[in-house]
Amino acid sequence: MKSATILGAGLVGSLLAIHLAKRGYKVEVHERRPDMRKENIPAGRSINLAMSDRGWRGLEKVGLREDIESIAIPMKGRMIHALDGTTSFQPYGKEGQAIYAVSRGVLNCALMNLAEQQDDVQLFFNERCVHVDLQKHMLHFENPRSDSYSEKSYDLLFGADGAFSALRHSMQFMDRYNYSQQYIEHGYKELMIPSDANGRHKMEVNALHIWPRGNFMLIALPNIDGTFTCTLFFPFEGDVSFQKLKTEGDVRKFFTEYFPDVIPLMPGYITDFFQNPTSSLLTVRCFPWQANGNTCLIGDAAHAIVPFFGQGMNCGFEDCSVLSELMDEHGDDWKTILPLFEALRKPNADAIADLALNNFIEMRDLVADPHFLHKKKIEKMIAEKYPEKYISPYQMVSFSHIPYSDALKNGAAINNVLDQLTRVEQLESKFESAEIQKMILPILFG
Amino acid sequence: MKSATILGAGLVGSLLAIHLAKRGYKVEVHERRPDMRKENIPAGRSINLAMSDRGWRGLEKVGLREDIESIAIPMKGRMIHALDGTTSFQPYGKEGQAIYAVSRGVLNCALMNLAEQQDDVQLFFNERCVHVDLQKHMLHFENPRSDSYSEKSYDLLFGADGAFSALRHSMQFMDRYNYSQQYIEHGYKELMIPSDANGRHKMEVNALHIWPRGNFMLIALPNIDGTFTCTLFFPFEGDVSFQKLKTEGDVRKFFTEYFPDVIPLMPGYITDFFQNPTSSLLTVRCFPWQANGNTCLIGDAAHAIVPFFGQGMNCGFEDCSVLSELMDEHGDDWKTILPLFEALRKPNADAIADLALNNFIEMRDLVADPHFLHKKKIEKMIAEKYPEKYISPYQMVSFSHIPYSDALKNGAAINNVLDQLTRVEQLESKFESAEIQKMILPILFG
Repeated sequence: MKSATILGAGLVGSLLAIHLAKRGYKVEVHERRPDMRKENIPAGRSINLAMSDRGWRGLEKVGLREDIESIAIPMKGRMIHALDGTTSFQPYGKEGQAIYAVSRGVLNCALMNLAEQQDDVQLFFNERCVHVDLQKHMLHFENPRSDSYSEKSYDLLFGADGAFSALRHSMQFMDRYNYSQQYIEHGYKELMIPSDANGRHKMEVNALHIWPRGNFMLIALPNIDGTFTCTLFFPFEGDVSFQKLKTEGDVRKFFTEYFPDVIPLMPGYITDFFQNPTSSLLTVRCFPWQANGNTCLIGDAAHAIVPFFGQGMNCGFEDCSVLSELMDEHGDDWKTILPLFEALRKPNADAIADLALNNFIEMRDLVADPHFLHKKKIEKMIAEKYPEKYISPYQMVSFSHIPYSDALKNGAAINNVLDQLTRVEQLESKFESAEIQKMILPILFG
Repeated sequence: MKSATILGAGLVGSLLAIHLAKRGYKVEVHERRPDMRKENIPAGRSINLAMSDRGWRGLEKVGLREDIESIAIPMKGRMIHALDGTTSFQPYGKEGQAIYAVSRGVLNCALMNLAEQQDDVQLFFNERCVHVDLQKHMLHFENPRSDSYSEKSYDLLFGADGAFSALRHSMQFMDRYNYSQQYIEHGYKELMIPSDANGRHKMEVNALHIWPRGNFMLIALPNIDGTFTCTLFFPFEGDVSFQKLKTEGDVRKFFTEYFPDVIPLMPGYITDFFQNPTSSLLTVRCFPWQANGNTCLIGDAAHAIVPFFGQGMNCGFEDCSVLSELMDEHGDDWKTILPLFEALRKPNADAIADLALNNFIEMRDLVADPHFLHKKKIEKMIAEKYPEKYISPYQMVSFSHIPYSDALKNGAAINNVLDQLTRVEQLESKFESAEIQKMILPILFG
């Protein structure tokens, strides 16, 4: 019988297990953590996600779209909170387009349940892979609960074990293995806006809220229980940084200065600030992703990215969709599929890594940078004149299946044209002229 | 008593042991390999080195310069071998300036002997560090010979354990640790030109010989026994690559086509080609280099670079010189010294990594690229007009102690001016004009 082993029962590992099971594979999934459906696990990472088109396609393929959609909250645009408390709304796309706030835990549990409902899928928990022997096709596990140690052989192995992947770590010692892990200078801390007395959201629910403050920002995503999960993205070091916020007074002063409108919404912010961990953010790039035609990285294990485009899970689900299409074409010929998979996905993973890093700067600058706002205004003019033909880089990433690498290239071309247009004096009066329309032509589609 | 532990008894580890011993430290050095003074170790890496000013300064500080100088061969310039067999000589610097071919093994043995002659230096061999516990200050060793395992605590630890450093590997799991290992697409293979019937060199001895062939090259460095060590730098994959040279016929055809003048000098090239390993080349960048003010990477462990500028060992020895100067200033205050050390050296390590990658392109293109040769010709005109004031990037790196980061910056400025000058028509007739001299001014020193 065909068999596959997956490291990691996270979002991508669970989805991949379903895909493989549906094609007749006997699948074993080994997860380092306890079963989150039975035990309350302290949130190691952000508790909500922004699902967009690539993620939905991944769920659609396994028939989970409707279930998840029913508990997802559409966010139709960004609600920008200026320092003076005024707000402005920027739609993400056209009427009807939205990204969706989804609970990571609920989604992960749904995927694990569906995986276990398949024939021949087994999930094992508390099994920490400590080493993969790529030559002998052997996995070495430690079980921290039972203090036991075990070994297992594999025929086909996927490492869906996240940014700190054990499989990737073993691959790193292959000759000519390219690898990089780069942290940004910002960390993050989660805070909470509780629901109001009636259990309802205290702010507009169908938006992703952003308090852009130049070098840092606060964001908030809605949860279905009426709360918002807020995340402060903030430098570790420097004049205004985590390092400098040592006392309750420091934190109070900081929020009073930069987020005065948030304080009344978030009564527990000082306690949260000191209780919740400060986490770091990294980009992982590596190549190759596969070895011997029977071992492959997927999801964050192959391409961990910073969260500013909300594409980490979406990109991992797209990995699964692409792999599934390759199985349609090449059956069980993994020696063909895996090299094709890495060749197809690596340029796109590199592109979304760059797009995500760039989007942090865009989000932080939303209010502050006049040149950026000038470009946004011009972009809006173009989008209104060509509602069908103009697609913003954000839309390409979130509301299309255009390869990320094309979105990156097109984004650079758009940025170049917008830069040129900012230098045109009295642009609005000349906007309909042949000269200006000629400048816009290269960034229109279709 | 003050004590220090060093991982690695290579060139940098041994030199560092001498420096620390001279300041009253009890030093233990743990080396993974057997003692190369007692056993014949298969050459894992290039067997000769190019020593230049930064390396000499390192040896001078411990009184080894004269000993090594007596067995070093000055290479005053590059001898370029064109495809048609004609040769041309390009001096590296001014009269009297040279880089020196030195045997890696001889130099390493001399440094180990000198280290053991100090009070309180002990070298341990066959001790492979498998893990460093940075919190508990514990080293974990495996001894592959005795199949034994041991642990040792440390007060002050240096990882001089090379490109695949065990210390760095343990540091990689620190939060926010930036790390990258990038292989180039070329590998290398060593070959040998034996001495003539009289035990003498078959080619000009005081030169570094280069056969530049566009995308690849062969080089040769003289040894004191009359031989030359040749290294073929060659793509792993592609139309003309290691991958394509499978049979003796393939290798013979390749050498006949690209290095016809080398064949008569190198009778055993076909046997050598199949017996000697094909090795890969990487750049390692990481940060931080130190942890807790008591643990630090040095040499290749902190900054492995490709060999094309001949600066790997020179840069590692400069690390030791800089550390020694910091000890002059700050005594045994390692919590002050180590952060200063990494702050001073990291930008220079990054710069020499880039310079080394760039120099590969320069060396390969020496004959092939007309634009490059045009620039070289203009550079020569400038150097001849301003013998004191013009210093080429090569000279800054090899014959000065200008920080590598300044050499990189100055090199970019020089390249920019040379590019501009290539666009001047009939430059030679205008060379003395005020206009041209004004263009040259920014790249003159003093």
